[in-house]
Amino acid sequence: MTTEATLIEKIRRAIPSRPGGFLRLGIGDDAAVLRSFTRGRPARGVLSDWVFTSDSFLEGVHFLPSRHPSRAVGYKALARALSDIAAMGAVPRVFLLNLAFPQKLTGSWLDQFLGGMARAARNFRVVLAGGDISQFPFVAISIAVLGEVPAGKAVKRSGARPGDLLFVSGTLGAAQLGLELILRQGKPTGSLLRSPALQTHLFPNPRLELGAWLADRGLVSAMIDTSDGFSTDLARLCQASRVGVRVWADRLPGVQVPLGLRRKGLSSLELALHGGEDYELVFAVPSRLARRIPSSHRGVRLTQVGEFVRGREVRLIDSVDRASKLAPRGWDHFR
Amino acid sequence: MTTEATLIEKIRRAIPSRPGGFLRLGIGDDAAVLRSFTRGRPARGVLSDWVFTSDSFLEGVHFLPSRHPSRAVGYKALARALSDIAAMGAVPRVFLLNLAFPQKLTGSWLDQFLGGMARAARNFRVVLAGGDISQFPFVAISIAVLGEVPAGKAVKRSGARPGDLLFVSGTLGAAQLGLELILRQGKPTGSLLRSPALQTHLFPNPRLELGAWLADRGLVSAMIDTSDGFSTDLARLCQASRVGVRVWADRLPGVQVPLGLRRKGLSSLELALHGGEDYELVFAVPSRLARRIPSSHRGVRLTQVGEFVRGREVRLIDSVDRASKLAPRGWDHFR
Repeated sequence: MTTEATLIEKIRRAIPSRPGGFLRLGIGDDAAVLRSFTRGRPARGVLSDWVFTSDSFLEGVHFLPSRHPSRAVGYKALARALSDIAAMGAVPRVFLLNLAFPQKLTGSWLDQFLGGMARAARNFRVVLAGGDISQFPFVAISIAVLGEVPAGKAVKRSGARPGDLLFVSGTLGAAQLGLELILRQGKPTGSLLRSPALQTHLFPNPRLELGAWLADRGLVSAMIDTSDGFSTDLARLCQASRVGVRVWADRLPGVQVPLGLRRKGLSSLELALHGGEDYELVFAVPSRLARRIPSSHRGVRLTQVGEFVRGREVRLIDSVDRASKLAPRGWDHFR
Repeated sequence: MTTEATLIEKIRRAIPSRPGGFLRLGIGDDAAVLRSFTRGRPARGVLSDWVFTSDSFLEGVHFLPSRHPSRAVGYKALARALSDIAAMGAVPRVFLLNLAFPQKLTGSWLDQFLGGMARAARNFRVVLAGGDISQFPFVAISIAVLGEVPAGKAVKRSGARPGDLLFVSGTLGAAQLGLELILRQGKPTGSLLRSPALQTHLFPNPRLELGAWLADRGLVSAMIDTSDGFSTDLARLCQASRVGVRVWADRLPGVQVPLGLRRKGLSSLELALHGGEDYELVFAVPSRLARRIPSSHRGVRLTQVGEFVRGREVRLIDSVDRASKLAPRGWDHFR
């Protein structure tokens, strides 16, 4: 079976990609980490590292023109790329936009798209530095971002240790709930558009302030953002850190699911575990530092939802302490 | 009429993009230039600037699966992005690959593609640092590159002055001739594949050593690469520099066109003026420095083909000294 992970491994083996010199961290994390360099050698006396990531946002894959307003497409294309910067504990500085789209969208679609992207750029204080445009039958967006992090303080996926505590920011499952509403009810307007689930789905808030705060204070041993769903992203963090984890189901900060959708089988727990695109942070905190994690940071709730353990198993613990295997059932592009 | 330039201007106005602080040069050149920074302020004592660019390579737009071997698609997607780094006089260091493609291409197509990209990465000494993969009905590739240049030495498009001499590297029109051959004869094999025009079209050589050498020695006042065709790229350089230019037609280093294609109206001069994708360097040299430009650099021919003048006119001078307007008739995505 082809999966995203096997394809990434294939690419990694085929193309020169070994970290070294100025490249401190390469393929396999939310972003690459680079040290400033001079003629190929790391520069001395520089207090920041650079963080470098890129992200695609494609018509029919990541969004549907019939359902997603172009303003949200522009906003979200940038916001989700910034979330990878947040997951490293870095601050984004500049981005590049590669935009391919059909000629017929050069009018109001493009204006709205740019308006949405401008809103995200202003909100998160990043500057557009370049890119390119092409005519293409589908909308295909690619965003590359450079961010800054204090030297040596970028947070990897690979640092979690048995005994560390598992935290998550905000709410899990809201973006997926928003998507389910859109898929059933069409392009959102009025009160539907203003609902929290829709706002999270269309205009997610990458946790940049939280990520930078955690990294700056050295409170976290590993971090990832929930782009493909909590179960999938947590499994990636565990694999990179070579640890297992026990997740307490009744502690997960889920969303209320409207009765109509519950009747169709959507549950708050399923959404929290496997729903994608919340762009919350999942992070590991050494137990001695746990008391320094507040219950919220600038209005964003922080919840302890489990603990890391020896081994490799990702387990879900229910309210009567029964454990079951938690399979990664979030988004995989090639499954 | 919508053109690429008007769309880029629309984007620049819509999204925060003003240079300042660490962003030394933003939208409108071959690449952005960044100074190393520390908590948002330019760092002191750093001897290099960073150069940051991204480039799309799209099925049906930049290549045709029925005509272009996947090995060449992988090679060229990276090589053309590196050419923008060459045009700044910089050395490429790391790149990110965003790759979208149909599931059915995960076998030998992907292997060949990665083999071609690996060849370019090794040839030009760049390391893959990350990116993403997606399933998509078409192949859509986006490459972001970070390069290094001695601080303050990045070469812009905007520095040419009246009196500067116009030079070009290598040969003009070879890549377009290769494309014309492919379009007429189908996917190339055997001796066709080995012909210089096909090799230039499929496996272009970004002029990285030449660009860095020129920048390092301070020999050039402005530079651009010929990605969209000499006439179009030269017009961009003139516009950015606010100068005009006189190009001597009989000095242009064109290619020999096979008789069969000449009979169909393809001329060496037309190919040299308007053919795209040679990825040669077009550069301005102050007249006092002209004697320091050799006739070739590491096997790449350097030819003086004109001179910059006051005004804004781009003119072609023929062998009996008649001048005519040289319109930009290279590639424009939205014309």
